[in-house]
Amino acid sequence: MRRLLLIGIGAGDPDHLTLQAARALGTFDVLFVVTKEDGPQELVSHRRQLVKSHRGDRPFRTVELSDPPRPWRDATDYGGEVGRWRTARVELWEAAVGDQLGDGECGAFLVWGDPSLYESTLTVVEEIRRRATFALEFEVIPGVSSVHALTARHRISLNRVGSAVQITPARLLANGMPEDVDDVVVMLDPGAAFARIPADDLDIYWGAYLGTPDELLISGALADVSSAILAEREDAKRRKGWIFDIYLLRRRRR
Amino acid sequence: MRRLLLIGIGAGDPDHLTLQAARALGTFDVLFVVTKEDGPQELVSHRRQLVKSHRGDRPFRTVELSDPPRPWRDATDYGGEVGRWRTARVELWEAAVGDQLGDGECGAFLVWGDPSLYESTLTVVEEIRRRATFALEFEVIPGVSSVHALTARHRISLNRVGSAVQITPARLLANGMPEDVDDVVVMLDPGAAFARIPADDLDIYWGAYLGTPDELLISGALADVSSAILAEREDAKRRKGWIFDIYLLRRRRR
Repeated sequence: MRRLLLIGIGAGDPDHLTLQAARALGTFDVLFVVTKEDGPQELVSHRRQLVKSHRGDRPFRTVELSDPPRPWRDATDYGGEVGRWRTARVELWEAAVGDQLGDGECGAFLVWGDPSLYESTLTVVEEIRRRATFALEFEVIPGVSSVHALTARHRISLNRVGSAVQITPARLLANGMPEDVDDVVVMLDPGAAFARIPADDLDIYWGAYLGTPDELLISGALADVSSAILAEREDAKRRKGWIFDIYLLRRRRR
Repeated sequence: MRRLLLIGIGAGDPDHLTLQAARALGTFDVLFVVTKEDGPQELVSHRRQLVKSHRGDRPFRTVELSDPPRPWRDATDYGGEVGRWRTARVELWEAAVGDQLGDGECGAFLVWGDPSLYESTLTVVEEIRRRATFALEFEVIPGVSSVHALTARHRISLNRVGSAVQITPARLLANGMPEDVDDVVVMLDPGAAFARIPADDLDIYWGAYLGTPDELLISGALADVSSAILAEREDAKRRKGWIFDIYLLRRRRR
């Protein structure tokens, strides 16, 4: 039996690691590191630093999985593209786990934020478990997600009393805010969807690089701060070469 | 200046505490403990045990805030009732913080799960900050919410690729699943709303007492497992006198 740990590491602040995750960093035999073609080196070194801080001197092996190029978010056949990208990942990871992890050994993936939220690692590993010729079990270690990092830094509630909240990828915002929910967290937004929707009755709570020294926070009426957020995003992307951001849109009530 | 820490402690598993939260447990002067008329003693002792584990021997003062009775969730004027209950809490807490916390001191509230999700502590403290005659600042320390504890234990993703997810109080489920979202997390459900909605195309992932020795997990087609969940809930409530549960409803796709 091979074992995998999917360890949620929080969304930027190394102190958002849980005690369970910190302990898990000391137990694996093989660290699987997913590298993206043009992925930020900072994220790789953040993970390396976490392991160093919590593992001590015990040796481990590292296996690099270089990610196939991601499909464009605005591809016409986005679903199909994602499907093919997934299959390629599954085959690559399955071969790596089968070849590099011995029977009885434990491998680990360090997952940004929480492993359940807009994160494919879990689905890929579940598919490997189902189809692989070797026996595999895995455990998920939850983390502080960027959603909770955002609300903590703005010191706001996610929901309002008796109301629902929605978490959505930005592409679904193209049709505007959902009708039945007044509080919407938007993730995966390279195209700044917030700047293209009617801003009349909306407040925004925006954050980037949450919990890191580069953290940026802006909040206010969307109509008032939208262009400031656009400018900050462009500036930050130029400066750092990448950006992770997230925001809550909140419909004002009369 | 008085200071308050709102510390997210996770949803049951003491190892879901973050390093930041564990450190914060060592720093406050006064621990504010909210006690509910018929609230479970177990939750009070869980918090006490956390402080004991992470604070060491440094002394602190404890101030008990006995909560006004909560309004019924199915009150006709639920919004108004909650409003009045809130005002009573604000006045009580404001007096306690003003009287029991000295200038320059730091107080702490230990908040179940994450302070932003269906949790009134943050809103109450924000209102005290706004209206109090004394200066007050506060910091929110995020935690692993029950949503992520649930998905981790079931080893499932919260969302599906390219799709949104909704988090909702059970009372909004009375009108059935939302139309525009296929994945809905339901919280605050004393009335077992899942058993009253059309179950045809739904799967459920249910969990109670997550991350504790009493943990219960059931998943499957809602039509198949609904009565088993009802039975487990009743049995657990009888046995322990209280229950914290949460579930994800997932619409099957063809």
